[in-house]
Amino acid sequence: MLKLYYAPGTCALATHIALEEAGAPHEAVRVDFGSQAQRSADYLAVNPKGRVPALVTESGTLSETPALLLYVAQTFPAAELAPLADPFALAQVQEFNSYLCATVHVAHAHGRRGTRWADDAAAIEAMKRKVPASVTECAELIERKFLKGPWVMGDRYTIADPYLFTIAAWFEGDGVDTTKLPRTIEHRRRMLARPAVQKAVSIEGTQIP
Amino acid sequence: MLKLYYAPGTCALATHIALEEAGAPHEAVRVDFGSQAQRSADYLAVNPKGRVPALVTESGTLSETPALLLYVAQTFPAAELAPLADPFALAQVQEFNSYLCATVHVAHAHGRRGTRWADDAAAIEAMKRKVPASVTECAELIERKFLKGPWVMGDRYTIADPYLFTIAAWFEGDGVDTTKLPRTIEHRRRMLARPAVQKAVSIEGTQIP
Repeated sequence: MLKLYYAPGTCALATHIALEEAGAPHEAVRVDFGSQAQRSADYLAVNPKGRVPALVTESGTLSETPALLLYVAQTFPAAELAPLADPFALAQVQEFNSYLCATVHVAHAHGRRGTRWADDAAAIEAMKRKVPASVTECAELIERKFLKGPWVMGDRYTIADPYLFTIAAWFEGDGVDTTKLPRTIEHRRRMLARPAVQKAVSIEGTQIP
Repeated sequence: MLKLYYAPGTCALATHIALEEAGAPHEAVRVDFGSQAQRSADYLAVNPKGRVPALVTESGTLSETPALLLYVAQTFPAAELAPLADPFALAQVQEFNSYLCATVHVAHAHGRRGTRWADDAAAIEAMKRKVPASVTECAELIERKFLKGPWVMGDRYTIADPYLFTIAAWFEGDGVDTTKLPRTIEHRRRMLARPAVQKAVSIEGTQIP
Protein backbone atom coordinates (compact mmCIF):
# COMPACT_ATOMS: atom_id res chain seq x y z
CA MET A 1 0.00 0.00 0.00
CA LEU A 2 1.20 3.51 -0.78
CA LYS A 3 2.07 5.78 2.13
CA LEU A 4 1.86 9.56 1.67
CA TYR A 5 3.67 11.82 4.13
CA TYR A 6 1.93 15.20 4.30
CA ALA A 7 1.42 18.27 6.43
CA PRO A 8 -1.76 20.37 6.33
CA GLY A 9 -1.55 23.49 4.20
CA THR A 10 1.34 22.20 2.09
CA CYS A 11 1.53 21.16 -1.55
CA ALA A 12 1.16 17.52 -0.41
CA LEU A 13 -2.59 18.11 -0.72
CA ALA A 14 -2.31 17.86 -4.53
CA THR A 15 -1.00 14.30 -4.39
CA HIS A 16 -3.43 13.44 -1.61
CA ILE A 17 -6.35 14.48 -3.84
CA ALA A 18 -4.90 12.59 -6.81
CA LEU A 19 -4.68 9.41 -4.72
CA GLU A 20 -8.32 9.82 -3.71
CA GLU A 21 -9.38 10.54 -7.30
CA ALA A 22 -7.55 7.41 -8.47
CA GLY A 23 -9.07 5.23 -5.77
CA ALA A 24 -5.51 4.26 -4.88
CA PRO A 25 -5.12 2.22 -1.68
CA HIS A 26 -3.01 4.46 0.54
CA GLU A 27 -2.27 5.62 4.04
CA ALA A 28 -1.82 9.33 4.78
CA VAL A 29 0.78 10.04 7.48
CA ARG A 30 0.89 13.49 9.03
CA VAL A 31 4.32 15.08 9.60
CA ASP A 32 4.18 17.54 12.49
CA PHE A 33 5.77 20.75 11.20
CA GLY A 34 4.99 22.36 14.58
CA SER A 35 7.68 20.23 16.23
CA GLN A 36 9.92 20.41 13.12
CA ALA A 37 9.41 16.69 12.58
CA GLN A 38 10.36 17.14 8.92
CA ARG A 39 13.93 17.73 10.15
CA SER A 40 14.03 14.68 12.44
CA ALA A 41 16.42 11.83 11.70
CA ASP A 42 13.44 9.51 11.24
CA TYR A 43 11.90 11.67 8.58
CA LEU A 44 15.17 12.51 6.85
CA ALA A 45 15.61 8.76 6.41
CA VAL A 46 12.34 8.80 4.47
CA ASN A 47 13.06 12.00 2.51
CA PRO A 48 16.57 13.50 2.77
CA LYS A 49 15.18 16.82 1.50
CA GLY A 50 13.30 17.28 4.78
CA ARG A 51 10.11 18.30 3.03
CA VAL A 52 6.69 16.93 2.19
CA PRO A 53 5.23 15.29 0.21
CA ALA A 54 7.00 11.95 0.13
CA LEU A 55 5.32 8.88 -1.29
CA VAL A 56 6.51 5.46 -0.16
CA THR A 57 5.85 2.81 -2.81
CA GLU A 58 6.77 -0.86 -2.94
CA SER A 59 9.67 0.10 -5.26
CA GLY A 60 11.01 2.95 -3.11
CA THR A 61 10.26 6.49 -1.98
CA LEU A 62 9.47 9.38 -4.31
CA SER A 63 9.23 13.14 -3.76
CA GLU A 64 8.46 16.29 -5.79
CA THR A 65 4.81 16.96 -6.54
CA PRO A 66 4.97 16.93 -10.37
CA ALA A 67 6.66 13.51 -10.23
CA LEU A 68 4.17 12.14 -7.71
CA LEU A 69 1.18 13.36 -9.70
CA LEU A 70 2.42 11.74 -12.90
CA TYR A 71 3.23 8.57 -10.96
CA VAL A 72 -0.34 8.34 -9.63
CA ALA A 73 -1.80 9.01 -13.09
CA GLN A 74 0.40 6.40 -14.73
CA THR A 75 -0.01 3.77 -12.01
CA PHE A 76 -3.81 4.06 -11.99
CA PRO A 77 -4.58 4.68 -15.67
CA ALA A 78 -8.27 3.75 -15.31
CA ALA A 79 -8.79 7.05 -13.47
CA GLU A 80 -7.70 8.92 -16.62
CA LEU A 81 -5.93 11.66 -14.68
CA ALA A 82 -3.49 12.55 -17.50
CA PRO A 83 -3.37 12.23 -21.32
CA LEU A 84 -0.60 9.65 -21.05
CA ALA A 85 -0.50 8.60 -24.71
CA ASP A 86 -0.51 12.10 -26.23
CA PRO A 87 2.98 13.64 -25.94
CA PHE A 88 1.87 17.20 -26.64
CA ALA A 89 -1.13 17.13 -24.31
CA LEU A 90 0.94 15.48 -21.58
CA ALA A 91 3.66 18.10 -22.06
CA GLN A 92 1.04 20.81 -21.55
CA VAL A 93 0.10 19.20 -18.22
CA GLN A 94 3.75 18.94 -17.23
CA GLU A 95 4.41 22.54 -18.35
CA PHE A 96 1.63 23.82 -16.12
CA ASN A 97 2.72 21.70 -13.16
CA SER A 98 6.36 22.75 -13.60
CA TYR A 99 5.26 26.38 -13.56
CA LEU A 100 3.35 25.84 -10.31
CA CYS A 101 6.31 24.01 -8.77
CA ALA A 102 9.24 26.18 -9.87
CA THR A 103 7.67 29.65 -10.15
CA VAL A 104 4.40 29.99 -8.22
CA HIS A 105 5.30 27.82 -5.22
CA VAL A 106 8.73 29.47 -5.13
CA ALA A 107 7.23 32.98 -5.17
CA HIS A 108 4.94 31.94 -2.29
CA ALA A 109 7.81 30.39 -0.33
CA HIS A 110 9.59 33.73 -0.08
CA GLY A 111 6.96 34.74 2.47
CA ARG A 112 7.80 31.98 4.95
CA ARG A 113 11.02 30.30 3.90
CA GLY A 114 13.23 33.28 3.08
CA THR A 115 16.08 31.76 5.10
CA ARG A 116 16.60 29.40 2.20
CA TRP A 117 17.90 32.27 0.10
CA ALA A 118 19.34 34.89 2.50
CA ASP A 119 20.66 35.05 6.05
CA ASP A 120 20.03 38.72 6.64
CA ALA A 121 16.86 39.59 8.60
CA ALA A 122 16.17 42.75 6.60
CA ALA A 123 16.51 40.82 3.35
CA ILE A 124 14.03 38.22 4.59
CA GLU A 125 11.57 41.02 5.40
CA ALA A 126 12.14 42.52 1.94
CA MET A 127 11.27 39.15 0.39
CA LYS A 128 8.05 38.98 2.42
CA ARG A 129 7.04 42.41 1.18
CA LYS A 130 7.29 41.35 -2.45
CA VAL A 131 5.17 38.19 -2.10
CA PRO A 132 1.81 39.86 -2.87
CA ALA A 133 3.19 41.35 -6.10
CA SER A 134 5.11 38.30 -7.29
CA VAL A 135 2.34 35.80 -6.52
CA THR A 136 -0.27 38.13 -8.06
CA GLU A 137 1.76 38.24 -11.26
CA CYS A 138 1.72 34.42 -11.40
CA ALA A 139 -1.96 34.22 -10.48
CA GLU A 140 -2.95 36.67 -13.22
CA LEU A 141 -0.97 34.72 -15.82
CA ILE A 142 -2.82 31.57 -14.77
CA GLU A 143 -6.20 33.35 -14.81
CA ARG A 144 -5.66 34.98 -18.21
CA LYS A 145 -3.52 32.50 -20.12
CA PHE A 146 -3.21 29.02 -18.64
CA LEU A 147 -6.53 28.04 -17.03
CA LYS A 148 -8.62 26.98 -20.02
CA GLY A 149 -11.78 26.16 -18.09
CA PRO A 150 -13.75 24.48 -16.78
CA TRP A 151 -10.63 22.50 -15.84
CA VAL A 152 -7.03 23.66 -16.26
CA MET A 153 -6.59 21.72 -19.50
CA GLY A 154 -10.14 22.35 -20.75
CA ASP A 155 -12.92 19.79 -20.69
CA ARG A 156 -10.77 17.09 -19.20
CA TYR A 157 -9.94 16.88 -15.49
CA THR A 158 -6.22 16.11 -15.00
CA ILE A 159 -3.47 16.11 -12.37
CA ALA A 160 -3.07 19.83 -13.11
CA ASP A 161 -6.37 20.49 -11.30
CA PRO A 162 -5.57 19.31 -7.76
CA TYR A 163 -2.21 21.08 -8.04
CA LEU A 164 -3.76 24.42 -9.03
CA PHE A 165 -6.42 24.01 -6.35
CA THR A 166 -3.72 23.44 -3.73
CA ILE A 167 -1.50 26.36 -4.71
CA ALA A 168 -4.42 28.74 -5.30
CA ALA A 169 -5.62 28.05 -1.74
CA TRP A 170 -2.56 30.07 -0.66
CA PHE A 171 -3.41 33.14 -2.73
CA GLU A 172 -5.47 35.00 -0.12
CA GLY A 173 -2.80 34.42 2.54
CA ASP A 174 -0.20 35.72 0.10
CA GLY A 175 -2.07 39.01 -0.28
CA VAL A 176 -3.52 38.31 -3.72
CA ASP A 177 -6.85 40.00 -4.46
CA THR A 178 -8.83 36.98 -5.60
CA THR A 179 -11.89 39.07 -6.50
CA LYS A 180 -9.89 39.77 -9.68
CA LEU A 181 -9.51 36.04 -10.36
CA PRO A 182 -13.09 34.89 -11.00
CA ARG A 183 -12.11 31.91 -13.15
CA THR A 184 -9.61 30.65 -10.59
CA ILE A 185 -12.17 30.97 -7.79
CA GLU A 186 -14.78 29.22 -9.90
CA HIS A 187 -12.24 26.42 -10.38
CA ARG A 188 -11.83 26.22 -6.60
CA ARG A 189 -15.61 25.88 -6.13
CA ARG A 190 -15.79 23.22 -8.84
CA MET A 191 -13.00 21.31 -7.11
CA LEU A 192 -14.71 21.55 -3.72
CA ALA A 193 -17.76 19.85 -5.21
CA ARG A 194 -15.75 16.68 -5.91
CA PRO A 195 -15.93 13.94 -3.26
CA ALA A 196 -12.21 13.12 -3.60
CA VAL A 197 -11.28 16.73 -2.86
CA GLN A 198 -13.66 16.94 0.09
CA LYS A 199 -12.21 13.74 1.53
CA ALA A 200 -8.53 14.75 1.24
CA VAL A 201 -9.20 18.26 2.60
CA SER A 202 -11.17 16.83 5.49
CA ILE A 203 -8.57 14.19 6.44
CA GLU A 204 -5.80 16.81 6.43
CA GLY A 205 -7.89 19.50 8.10
CA THR A 206 -6.49 21.92 5.52
CA GLN A 207 -8.24 25.28 5.44
CA ILE A 208 -9.49 26.40 2.01
CA PRO A 209 -10.40 30.13 1.83
CA MET B 1 10.04 20.93 -37.78
CA LEU B 2 10.56 21.78 -34.12
CA LYS B 3 11.94 25.20 -33.26
CA LEU B 4 13.85 25.68 -29.99
CA TYR B 5 14.33 29.20 -28.63
CA TYR B 6 17.45 29.33 -26.48
CA ALA B 7 20.11 31.65 -25.07
CA PRO B 8 23.67 30.49 -24.33
CA GLY B 9 24.36 29.65 -20.71
CA THR B 10 20.71 29.00 -19.86
CA CYS B 11 18.83 25.81 -19.02
CA ALA B 12 17.69 25.65 -22.67
CA LEU B 13 20.89 23.67 -23.28
CA ALA B 14 19.29 20.60 -21.67
CA THR B 15 16.51 20.45 -24.25
CA HIS B 16 18.96 21.32 -27.02
CA ILE B 17 21.08 18.30 -26.11
CA ALA B 18 18.00 16.05 -25.86
CA LEU B 19 16.90 17.09 -29.37
CA GLU B 20 20.38 16.23 -30.67
CA GLU B 21 20.40 12.90 -28.81
CA ALA B 22 16.99 12.04 -30.26
CA GLY B 23 18.02 12.96 -33.80
CA ALA B 24 14.96 15.24 -33.83
CA PRO B 25 14.69 17.55 -36.84
CA HIS B 26 14.84 21.02 -35.29
CA GLU B 27 15.98 24.59 -35.69
CA ALA B 28 17.71 26.38 -32.80
CA VAL B 29 16.87 30.09 -32.58
CA ARG B 30 19.00 32.30 -30.38
CA VAL B 31 17.24 34.90 -28.20
CA ASP B 32 19.52 37.86 -27.52
CA PHE B 33 19.43 38.39 -23.76
CA GLY B 34 21.98 41.24 -24.22
CA SER B 35 19.29 43.39 -25.85
CA GLN B 36 16.55 41.97 -23.55
CA ALA B 37 14.93 40.32 -26.56
CA GLN B 38 13.21 37.87 -24.20
CA ARG B 39 11.03 40.82 -23.08
CA SER B 40 10.19 41.99 -26.63
CA ALA B 41 6.59 41.83 -27.89
CA ASP B 42 7.69 39.38 -30.58
CA TYR B 43 9.13 36.94 -28.07
CA LEU B 44 6.34 37.36 -25.52
CA ALA B 45 3.97 36.26 -28.31
CA VAL B 46 6.00 33.03 -28.44
CA ASN B 47 6.35 32.59 -24.66
CA PRO B 48 4.40 34.94 -22.40
CA LYS B 49 6.73 34.05 -19.52
CA GLY B 50 9.55 35.95 -21.24
CA ARG B 51 12.04 33.16 -20.64
CA VAL B 52 13.82 30.42 -22.52
CA PRO B 53 13.52 27.64 -23.47
CA ALA B 54 10.42 27.58 -25.62
CA LEU B 55 9.76 24.78 -28.08
CA VAL B 56 7.47 25.44 -31.03
CA THR B 57 5.80 22.24 -32.24
CA GLU B 58 3.19 21.66 -34.92
CA SER B 59 0.59 21.44 -32.12
CA GLY B 60 1.64 24.60 -30.30
CA THR B 61 4.39 26.06 -28.12
CA LEU B 62 5.70 24.48 -24.92
CA SER B 63 7.93 25.77 -22.14
CA GLU B 64 9.46 24.51 -18.87
CA THR B 65 12.48 22.24 -19.15
CA PRO B 66 11.07 19.14 -17.39
CA ALA B 67 8.06 19.23 -19.74
CA LEU B 68 10.20 19.72 -22.85
CA LEU B 69 12.54 16.89 -21.92
CA LEU B 70 9.70 14.44 -21.39
CA TYR B 71 8.10 15.65 -24.64
CA VAL B 72 11.29 14.92 -26.59
CA ALA B 73 11.67 11.51 -24.95
CA GLN B 74 8.06 10.55 -25.65
CA THR B 75 7.97 11.93 -29.22
CA PHE B 76 11.16 10.12 -30.23
CA PRO B 77 10.88 6.85 -28.30
CA ALA B 78 13.50 5.08 -30.44
CA ALA B 79 16.17 7.20 -28.71
CA GLU B 80 15.18 5.61 -25.37
CA LEU B 81 15.76 8.80 -23.40
CA ALA B 82 13.33 7.89 -20.59
CA PRO B 83 11.81 4.71 -19.07
CA LEU B 84 8.39 5.66 -20.42
CA ALA B 85 6.58 2.42 -19.60
CA ASP B 86 7.84 2.05 -16.01
CA PRO B 87 5.90 4.42 -13.72
CA PHE B 88 8.33 4.20 -10.81
CA ALA B 89 11.48 4.63 -12.93
CA LEU B 90 9.89 7.49 -14.84
CA ALA B 91 8.86 9.11 -11.56
CA GLN B 92 12.49 8.94 -10.41
CA VAL B 93 13.53 10.81 -13.56
CA GLN B 94 10.79 13.38 -13.02
CA GLU B 95 11.69 13.68 -9.33
CA PHE B 96 15.29 14.48 -10.18
CA ASN B 97 14.33 16.93 -12.93
CA SER B 98 11.81 18.65 -10.67
CA TYR B 99 14.50 19.07 -8.03
CA LEU B 100 16.83 20.66 -10.58
CA CYS B 101 14.06 22.96 -11.81
CA ALA B 102 12.42 24.05 -8.57
CA THR B 103 15.30 23.92 -6.07
CA VAL B 104 18.74 23.98 -7.74
CA HIS B 105 17.92 26.35 -10.60
CA VAL B 106 16.02 28.56 -8.15
CA ALA B 107 18.97 28.69 -5.73
CA HIS B 108 21.23 29.66 -8.64
CA ALA B 109 18.80 32.32 -9.88
CA HIS B 110 19.13 34.27 -6.63
CA GLY B 111 22.58 35.33 -7.83
CA ARG B 112 21.34 37.12 -10.94
CA ARG B 113 17.57 37.42 -10.80
CA GLY B 114 17.02 38.59 -7.24
CA THR B 115 14.64 41.29 -8.47
CA ARG B 116 12.07 38.54 -8.95
CA TRP B 117 11.78 38.18 -5.19
CA ALA B 118 12.72 41.55 -3.63
CA ASP B 119 12.91 45.20 -4.69
CA ASP B 120 15.44 46.32 -2.10
CA ALA B 121 19.07 46.59 -3.33
CA ALA B 122 20.53 45.40 -0.02
CA ALA B 123 18.24 42.37 -0.05
CA ILE B 124 19.33 41.50 -3.57
CA GLU B 125 22.96 41.65 -2.43
CA ALA B 126 22.12 39.45 0.58
CA MET B 127 20.62 36.87 -1.79
CA LYS B 128 23.77 36.91 -3.91
CA ARG B 129 25.90 36.25 -0.85
CA LYS B 130 23.97 33.09 0.01
CA VAL B 131 24.21 31.53 -3.47
CA PRO B 132 27.50 29.64 -2.84
CA ALA B 133 26.07 28.03 0.31
CA SER B 134 22.62 27.22 -1.05
CA VAL B 135 23.84 25.84 -4.37
CA THR B 136 26.59 23.87 -2.60
CA GLU B 137 23.96 22.25 -0.39
CA CYS B 138 22.04 21.14 -3.49
CA ALA B 139 25.20 20.02 -5.29
CA GLU B 140 26.30 17.88 -2.35
CA LEU B 141 22.90 16.21 -2.14
CA ILE B 142 23.16 15.35 -5.83
CA GLU B 143 26.75 14.12 -5.44
CA ARG B 144 26.00 11.97 -2.38
CA LYS B 145 22.42 10.81 -2.87
CA PHE B 146 20.95 11.30 -6.31
CA LEU B 147 23.65 10.72 -8.95
CA LYS B 148 23.80 6.93 -9.17
CA GLY B 149 26.56 6.75 -11.77
CA PRO B 150 27.73 6.45 -14.39
CA TRP B 151 24.54 8.27 -15.43
CA VAL B 152 22.11 10.00 -13.10
CA MET B 153 19.73 7.03 -13.10
CA GLY B 154 22.47 4.39 -13.17
CA ASP B 155 23.45 2.41 -16.24
CA ARG B 156 20.87 4.02 -18.44
CA TYR B 157 21.31 7.46 -20.01
CA THR B 158 18.11 9.52 -19.66
CA ILE B 159 16.78 13.07 -19.95
CA ALA B 160 18.07 13.62 -16.39
CA ASP B 161 21.63 13.63 -17.75
CA PRO B 162 21.57 16.65 -20.06
CA TYR B 163 19.66 18.54 -17.39
CA LEU B 164 22.23 17.81 -14.67
CA PHE B 165 25.06 18.60 -17.09
CA THR B 166 23.45 21.98 -17.87
CA ILE B 167 22.81 23.02 -14.28
CA ALA B 168 26.16 21.68 -13.00
CA ALA B 169 27.95 23.86 -15.57
CA TRP B 170 26.85 26.81 -13.38
CA PHE B 171 28.38 25.44 -10.17
CA GLU B 172 31.82 27.06 -10.49
CA GLY B 173 30.25 30.42 -11.32
CA ASP B 174 28.02 30.03 -8.28
CA GLY B 175 31.02 29.63 -6.00
CA VAL B 176 30.71 25.88 -5.48
CA ASP B 177 33.99 24.04 -4.83
CA THR B 178 33.69 21.33 -7.48
CA THR B 179 36.89 19.61 -6.34
CA LYS B 180 34.58 18.15 -3.66
CA LEU B 181 32.21 16.81 -6.32
CA PRO B 182 34.29 14.20 -8.16
CA ARG B 183 31.31 12.15 -9.33
CA THR B 184 29.52 15.20 -10.72
CA ILE B 185 32.66 16.33 -12.57
CA GLU B 186 33.19 12.82 -13.93
CA HIS B 187 29.59 12.97 -15.18
CA ARG B 188 30.41 16.26 -16.93
CA ARG B 189 33.42 14.68 -18.67
CA ARG B 190 31.35 11.67 -19.70
CA MET B 191 28.71 14.01 -21.16
CA LEU B 192 31.33 16.02 -23.05
CA ALA B 193 32.45 12.85 -24.79
CA ARG B 194 29.01 12.46 -26.42
CA PRO B 195 28.69 13.86 -29.96
CA ALA B 196 25.18 15.22 -29.28
CA VAL B 197 26.47 17.20 -26.32
CA GLN B 198 29.45 18.52 -28.25
CA LYS B 199 27.18 19.64 -31.07
CA ALA B 200 24.64 21.48 -28.90
CA VAL B 201 27.35 23.16 -26.83
CA SER B 202 29.17 24.23 -29.98
CA ILE B 203 26.10 25.63 -31.74
CA GLU B 204 25.18 27.66 -28.65
CA GLY B 205 28.74 28.71 -27.88
CA THR B 206 27.96 27.88 -24.23
CA GLN B 207 31.03 27.79 -21.96
CA ILE B 208 31.46 24.62 -19.88
CA PRO B 209 33.99 24.95 -17.00
